[in-house]
Amino acid sequence: METTEERLRTLIDGITPPDEGAMEEARKRQAQLAKPPGSLGRLEELSVRLAGITGKVQNSLADKVLLVFAADNGVVEEGVSSAPQSVTAVQTVQLTRGKTGASSIAAALGCRVTVCDVGVNADLDAFGAVLDRKIAYGTKNIVQGPAMSRDEAIRAILTGADLAMDTAEQGADVLGVGEMGIGNTTTSAAVLSVLTGTPICSVTGRGGGITDAAYQKKIAVIEEAIAHNRPDPLDPVDVLAKVGGLDLAAMTGAFLGAAKARVPAVMDGFISVVAALCAVRLCPEAAAFLIPSHASAEIGYNVALNALGQKPLFDLGMRLGEGSGCPIAMMMLDAACAAMNGMATFSEARIDDGYLDPIRAGDAFTVKGGSR
Amino acid sequence: METTEERLRTLIDGITPPDEGAMEEARKRQAQLAKPPGSLGRLEELSVRLAGITGKVQNSLADKVLLVFAADNGVVEEGVSSAPQSVTAVQTVQLTRGKTGASSIAAALGCRVTVCDVGVNADLDAFGAVLDRKIAYGTKNIVQGPAMSRDEAIRAILTGADLAMDTAEQGADVLGVGEMGIGNTTTSAAVLSVLTGTPICSVTGRGGGITDAAYQKKIAVIEEAIAHNRPDPLDPVDVLAKVGGLDLAAMTGAFLGAAKARVPAVMDGFISVVAALCAVRLCPEAAAFLIPSHASAEIGYNVALNALGQKPLFDLGMRLGEGSGCPIAMMMLDAACAAMNGMATFSEARIDDGYLDPIRAGDAFTVKGGSR
Repeated sequence: METTEERLRTLIDGITPPDEGAMEEARKRQAQLAKPPGSLGRLEELSVRLAGITGKVQNSLADKVLLVFAADNGVVEEGVSSAPQSVTAVQTVQLTRGKTGASSIAAALGCRVTVCDVGVNADLDAFGAVLDRKIAYGTKNIVQGPAMSRDEAIRAILTGADLAMDTAEQGADVLGVGEMGIGNTTTSAAVLSVLTGTPICSVTGRGGGITDAAYQKKIAVIEEAIAHNRPDPLDPVDVLAKVGGLDLAAMTGAFLGAAKARVPAVMDGFISVVAALCAVRLCPEAAAFLIPSHASAEIGYNVALNALGQKPLFDLGMRLGEGSGCPIAMMMLDAACAAMNGMATFSEARIDDGYLDPIRAGDAFTVKGGSR
Repeated sequence: METTEERLRTLIDGITPPDEGAMEEARKRQAQLAKPPGSLGRLEELSVRLAGITGKVQNSLADKVLLVFAADNGVVEEGVSSAPQSVTAVQTVQLTRGKTGASSIAAALGCRVTVCDVGVNADLDAFGAVLDRKIAYGTKNIVQGPAMSRDEAIRAILTGADLAMDTAEQGADVLGVGEMGIGNTTTSAAVLSVLTGTPICSVTGRGGGITDAAYQKKIAVIEEAIAHNRPDPLDPVDVLAKVGGLDLAAMTGAFLGAAKARVPAVMDGFISVVAALCAVRLCPEAAAFLIPSHASAEIGYNVALNALGQKPLFDLGMRLGEGSGCPIAMMMLDAACAAMNGMATFSEARIDDGYLDPIRAGDAFTVKGGSR
């Protein structure tokens, strides 16, 4: 029987690079489409990246799924959050009902939502729509010791990966990865600071909105947590276990699972991008499967996205989390696919200098005299 | 019988300010929704603006229509464009078939496309899907004289307005305004320079992509056109007639018509935003009905959008025109509506400090002990 460490290794080893041949074919087709070269901007880039992910030049992302991982974070007892811990449980349930920001947006934009409890500090058994994959009733307070054991962190990663792979297996063409977990901007800032060596104050924001005093406290808490736990920056699992959270770990796994299943994985804001960075530190090949969405207003976002070498697709000043930016980015992917699949090429449209030809027999129209 | 000047005056006088009461109600509701204040960023702003436009706090933009106005511009004989004039006719027809960038994207994102010929230099009678509202077979070369007569400009404006109002009357909840017209970045730069007093070189870009020599020629052509025609900056109709185009004039009218019909009008890139500015110069009240979409890569875009006091919603580096950014912005409006309509309020979710309550009777869950 494989250990969880072995299962994680197998998962990572199973992730292979994007299909360069398909990407090259996609670039060629973009150059043939009837438009000024490059005039579809990043939609062209997205179509090429999708080709690398799926191995096909023409893609259709009909089945869209947002995976939301919910967990509580013990560090909230330090007073680093604007909301009480109970909000995690409430909003986890509300997510399954389309009553939150991300779930209402997802419903409107044709994206299904799967909500997975990996560590909420409440029994949600009565709420059948929440997938029960609970590993613990929240993490421990990272100021006092590690958030969780190494084995718990790996189990959370594998839980996220399994859900992503199962969802892809069931037909999902694109996955978004979001979260619900009060306190997780604190853990994300800690993980990001350790992984990238960035000063804590440069990756720590105000999350849901906290006072100046609470913000100073949040920075002090992260400093203390890192000093106390001494996570190894070269071992992402160690970092997640010591100063991360079950939500972050499961999201990390979801990005790995999406890469294994070769479906595009859309990142949301700060927390989601930190999890994506953990995935890429575990497996550099996973980077090619990541699609950005919006620029989060949380200050650490840019640090994390830069570390991934990516740029946001849009900036609406959102900082809600939950995966709320993912459904909008999926629409941009749809637009990219539509242009690639639907546009005529120059030769199909018969556009060349000074020559106008009907597009099909019988479609004759007369061009009036040139100079006037 | 009203003259066309009188009809335009009646149209402008019929446009009234946004509903401040509904906007205030929308702001109040946003503050009650279960999320950190402001965390939906510009989606909150959009929901408030929609309330002002429709007079309702909760909106649904089910029926989306992109209006594309096609016309030729006589100035192309100066060699200012990368594409031959015949491309206008070809792409106008291709737009009705979902074979261009904007129309393929629109189809994928659930947006209908109406293509209206107001001045294509070809007979498109055989292509029934193109609405025939032709005013002339293209404009005249603005270097040699006015693009069109004042009466033609007003008729083009009224044509655009009528189409927008008719489309709204038939049920459209939101309109996008795009164009197809080789040479129209030249005319748009001329119009924008005159209206705003901005130096020509600061509003003139490379359109579909032209050489350095052609770019210098384009600037010289615009200088000559303005010097020769001496349009009155305080009279937008005069500016459109002398150095604009039938596409720009009809789009100007579409923005006025949308405002009159009180439906949101989504601007596309450079040309669309210049037309929107013409509409606002004719009728300042029309400004409240304008919704931005993407930052065009064309350099004059920011000048025009700044003059409108607006900011783009996203930047994908697109510079295709046709209205290609509009369907994506409409999805963002959908997201804004979905959050406003679907999210629970704090009291509905029973979220307050330290208190967790089931959302409906029977939904009991237990919160585990606080400190750990």
